[in-house]
Amino acid sequence: MKLALLGATGAVGRTMLEVLEQRGTAVEELVPLASSRSAGSTVSFRGHDWTVREPSESAFAGCDIALFSAGAARSRVWGPAAAAAGAIVVDNSSAWRMDPDVPLVVPEVNAHAMSSRPRGIIANPNCATIQIVVALAALRQIAGLRRVIATTFQSVSGAGHRGLAALDAEAAGEEATDSPFVRRIAGNVVPWIGARLPNGWNEEEEKIRLETRKILELPDLRVAATCVRVPVRVGHGASVTAELDRALPRERLREALADMPGLTVCGDDADPTPIDVAGTDGVSVGHLRLDHDDPRVAHFWVVADNLRKGAATNAVQIAASVFDA
Amino acid sequence: MKLALLGATGAVGRTMLEVLEQRGTAVEELVPLASSRSAGSTVSFRGHDWTVREPSESAFAGCDIALFSAGAARSRVWGPAAAAAGAIVVDNSSAWRMDPDVPLVVPEVNAHAMSSRPRGIIANPNCATIQIVVALAALRQIAGLRRVIATTFQSVSGAGHRGLAALDAEAAGEEATDSPFVRRIAGNVVPWIGARLPNGWNEEEEKIRLETRKILELPDLRVAATCVRVPVRVGHGASVTAELDRALPRERLREALADMPGLTVCGDDADPTPIDVAGTDGVSVGHLRLDHDDPRVAHFWVVADNLRKGAATNAVQIAASVFDA
Repeated sequence: MKLALLGATGAVGRTMLEVLEQRGTAVEELVPLASSRSAGSTVSFRGHDWTVREPSESAFAGCDIALFSAGAARSRVWGPAAAAAGAIVVDNSSAWRMDPDVPLVVPEVNAHAMSSRPRGIIANPNCATIQIVVALAALRQIAGLRRVIATTFQSVSGAGHRGLAALDAEAAGEEATDSPFVRRIAGNVVPWIGARLPNGWNEEEEKIRLETRKILELPDLRVAATCVRVPVRVGHGASVTAELDRALPRERLREALADMPGLTVCGDDADPTPIDVAGTDGVSVGHLRLDHDDPRVAHFWVVADNLRKGAATNAVQIAASVFDA
Repeated sequence: MKLALLGATGAVGRTMLEVLEQRGTAVEELVPLASSRSAGSTVSFRGHDWTVREPSESAFAGCDIALFSAGAARSRVWGPAAAAAGAIVVDNSSAWRMDPDVPLVVPEVNAHAMSSRPRGIIANPNCATIQIVVALAALRQIAGLRRVIATTFQSVSGAGHRGLAALDAEAAGEEATDSPFVRRIAGNVVPWIGARLPNGWNEEEEKIRLETRKILELPDLRVAATCVRVPVRVGHGASVTAELDRALPRERLREALADMPGLTVCGDDADPTPIDVAGTDGVSVGHLRLDHDDPRVAHFWVVADNLRKGAATNAVQIAASVFDA
């Protein structure tokens, strides 16, 4: 596989290289791409240093796969260019996710959607969406799904290197000079991720709503998310309420979650936390409860490494899957 | 007022003294009480040092008010004793909250309940419950209330000095030798507060459910809470979904919240965060949104200082109110 990686020096880009190495993905040639600021530097991959270049039409020539994690604006420009050059684009930005001609894929949930990709682009979902959808898909399979209410606990690495640097600076008693957050994040929690819309919702919350509907192919699913930034370096958590079509015992729901590929169910004495899953590839669920008032309603807690399953791992799974096919 | 304070050296007890001083409550004599470990030490109040004693029946003699914040076990023992000695007991523990002969009071919401106190005890609600209920009461007044789903972000001071010490130690790279938390809390979030029950729910979650119903006098209200500890020193947050009886425009809901005593509504550009409210006495609401799929459903974010409005301030408000009456 000849693989282009746009955003090679970002937090997710670096994690993609780690995941590719760790999974032994058959990459023979790497074309690391980034903005002019990083061009000329090198990234290390499989014992070689690969020089970072700025993206250009010729950079994608001969590439089988182009992984993108450099923001929506760059994806809008370079996605069609890379696809025109013959690469299958796996894009981690929000640019193409809601395009009806672009599949939005979590391989454990809707791998079948990858086969039709008229634009040559496959979109990787929002980090918080991925972990929530893996758990919802398991419950939906045995009990149907009517409504989702989620509150997220999102780590600062979701905002990239700048997010990590802001937390580190503030935690060290310094001022964060280039924080991506609207408020101090060290020792605090901030219910604001993405742009604030006139109706009071945040972009991140709308992403979870629309992407969950698309991935699950439930266009009318009721979804409401509240997204909150927390002072955690890596690993998102989410508190999720799922209203199912029918009531099932807690043990049946737990079995369905345990049967889901890529999902680990933790016992009542061992809820998973972000630091438990940082550096791992799976999604973990715990604190599963049936509602007191309506047995069709289940409440659970779900965590995953937002840089890995929430971004890099999911994208590499997609890339490996379409390359093998 | 002659005032006994049981738990005078705890995180909430010390905050009670601060709040009493700052509000100019008419306390002429203070009887600070604590366990044998603290007996003999002094607490400073209004320029005097008052010697801490162990609780005894004679300690409550002549006291008008006895503020308790020393855990449920001590409240069960000393509540009836202090009441028998003639003091009105305002108890911050969970011991008496659900007793039908004990009013459970948030003065802005159900001050009327204080007038009937057959046991001579008034209970102060759970910290997270108080801030949520103040906001819910405002919405209920104009639109009715059917169902509540809440996820809390609870600071470590909710677990007292031990909670603060655990966070400080872990944040400094040391091991927390006496942590009250089941997992590391620095740089992490932990969905576990209070004992875990066989049905998977936590005690803290059950408290929010039962206390909300009692305070609002809605015994059948559907309430489901998920309680999560976060690495914040002081100030709880909560993401709340409220299903109302009827749909109202967002602006009407905002007005109802703004009209509620003790509640501040923040604009869409300034969601309140824990560090904004630490040290203050009120409850702040922000990030108010109407549900996309059901206009009778509102989502909001609410924060308050858990040591003050969530505990000390609310108790002092109750004490001042019954003493004045």
